[in-house]
Amino acid sequence: MRIALDAMGGDSGAAPNVAGALQAVAAVPDLTVVLVGDPARIEPLLHQSPVPRERVEIVPATQWVEMHELPVEALRRKPDNSISRCWQLLAAHQVDAVVGAGSTGAMVAAGLRTRKFLPRIRRPGIAAVMPTAKGPCVIVDVGANISPKPSDLLQYGIMGSIFAKHLLKREHPTIGLMNIGEEEGKGHDLVRDTFTLFRASRWKDSFRGNVEGRDIHRGAVDVVVTDGFTGNVILKLSEGVLEFVLGLVKQEVVGSLVIERELAGQALKQLLSKYHYSAFGGAPLLGIDGICLICHGSSNDRAICSALTMAANYARARLNELIVAELEALPAEGDDSAVPALDI
Amino acid sequence: MRIALDAMGGDSGAAPNVAGALQAVAAVPDLTVVLVGDPARIEPLLHQSPVPRERVEIVPATQWVEMHELPVEALRRKPDNSISRCWQLLAAHQVDAVVGAGSTGAMVAAGLRTRKFLPRIRRPGIAAVMPTAKGPCVIVDVGANISPKPSDLLQYGIMGSIFAKHLLKREHPTIGLMNIGEEEGKGHDLVRDTFTLFRASRWKDSFRGNVEGRDIHRGAVDVVVTDGFTGNVILKLSEGVLEFVLGLVKQEVVGSLVIERELAGQALKQLLSKYHYSAFGGAPLLGIDGICLICHGSSNDRAICSALTMAANYARARLNELIVAELEALPAEGDDSAVPALDI
Repeated sequence: MRIALDAMGGDSGAAPNVAGALQAVAAVPDLTVVLVGDPARIEPLLHQSPVPRERVEIVPATQWVEMHELPVEALRRKPDNSISRCWQLLAAHQVDAVVGAGSTGAMVAAGLRTRKFLPRIRRPGIAAVMPTAKGPCVIVDVGANISPKPSDLLQYGIMGSIFAKHLLKREHPTIGLMNIGEEEGKGHDLVRDTFTLFRASRWKDSFRGNVEGRDIHRGAVDVVVTDGFTGNVILKLSEGVLEFVLGLVKQEVVGSLVIERELAGQALKQLLSKYHYSAFGGAPLLGIDGICLICHGSSNDRAICSALTMAANYARARLNELIVAELEALPAEGDDSAVPALDI
Repeated sequence: MRIALDAMGGDSGAAPNVAGALQAVAAVPDLTVVLVGDPARIEPLLHQSPVPRERVEIVPATQWVEMHELPVEALRRKPDNSISRCWQLLAAHQVDAVVGAGSTGAMVAAGLRTRKFLPRIRRPGIAAVMPTAKGPCVIVDVGANISPKPSDLLQYGIMGSIFAKHLLKREHPTIGLMNIGEEEGKGHDLVRDTFTLFRASRWKDSFRGNVEGRDIHRGAVDVVVTDGFTGNVILKLSEGVLEFVLGLVKQEVVGSLVIERELAGQALKQLLSKYHYSAFGGAPLLGIDGICLICHGSSNDRAICSALTMAANYARARLNELIVAELEALPAEGDDSAVPALDI
């Protein structure tokens, strides 16, 4: 198992990436991590480590995409950037998966450029795992495709439920369509047409219809389908509310205690670490012929390590083969499937 | 001060509405509440109360819109419904404001039918107050207009900042545009064009550019501008995450304590009641020539009472006059301002 990691990605440069890679190879026996980036920044970090280095390789890239850059423009201007190099390794079958915490837009755009999509996929979508009162659910898309067609959303539902079944271990995953009301007929054209498409499809029995914002964390469905704009807002907002509420709890609940304040503080810390985004590793870009996990920009070494571990599980589960088999039931798309716009 | 309350609105029928009305007239000396609905259901609830009844009136309506009905269709089929009757009282200047916890779609659609918009307003938007780490912020629109134009979003920003200044007491309210990244150029056409419009407007100094989902609860801006689809998801999702996290805290933090468990439970209860939606009253429909507050469907008597109190404050603040003065700087819209589609 070989995974390419964008060593330059994320808000904190190479350090958490290299540390996460070393933790992952220590934890996963058959894993080799290919660190893609500037050797001058990677090498010193490796030397500090006591971990055996034989399963950590370096592939040089002299450039990298900064978080503030417009993705497509940056990829064009910087041909030797670390993200494109990762994807080239995947396209050349030199690695089984790509993992990165850099610009989501650049990760997706570089992936789309390789054009290695699964059959019938017009636009890949990013799946994020979120905690709910009934265990984790998966939401697709959280930012790869902000102007999807109904047929894209149908594919996200199908891919998401295969993910939920095989990686979240839900026996019969249910699918919900994010909307502003439960009733049929609610929402704009995209959601109304998607509703109709699901109901007419062979996946209609798994489709639970519309779900609202408050249903996600109640665990109403296993798979939430939405456009990449709404999904991105949902993902980041959930994170923001979690942090906000836990901050309030720390101040107003833990702070009100005298005798057991330390005990409560410990329990709160554990809760945060259990439900924090970093516990859920990276978000897979589904629909790619290969494996790609996109990590949070502020990922620490722990988050990078769990993303690498998740990518290895993901490769082992042969999810793409299951997706391809399921998608064969879909009608083939026309010519326009060949030229997706890069609206990221 | 006279306020029409849809006595039939909400998930629990007339009871919380009547109880909330009685609490409000007891608390606000110059307030009269006009209960609009079925007298046979309202009268018995009034008789149970010890509160003086002279400032509670009944205007009969023999029909009401159920939560599952498609709004526009229901309004057409039920001409004597309580929501339309409320708006007719407002249009006839018999009340100063309308408050209701029924179907948001029906409240908005009935309001749009009266066609009493403020000058230059093409489509009213719903403003919701949300708690943040730096005090309350306001988000517009949360569900009245799911397919807005950039010019609508500009108006929501202006109206929202007048609301924030005069009702949330922010001296120089800042405005942020909900997007999937902070950088200019991010997102779909609607947000990119809205960004440009704000930057070219006389409100450009208050405009802080794009904000992401995680910025809202950090209190990054005082006013968050977004389309009604995204805003509705944000509002309901925030509520869902709050409930989910507080449930976890109750179980994993409070539950871990022995000596001070009751104390912590009390503090948690207080926190929930302070930050729960019901503490923020109703959500005003901004852009209407009059005052309309839309309440949560599951509003209890306390929420109805605070919405009525808020509507009274809102009328006293003469917010609409301030909005009209500010909007005069906008270019007049063309013919299409007369025929907004009812996409709710």
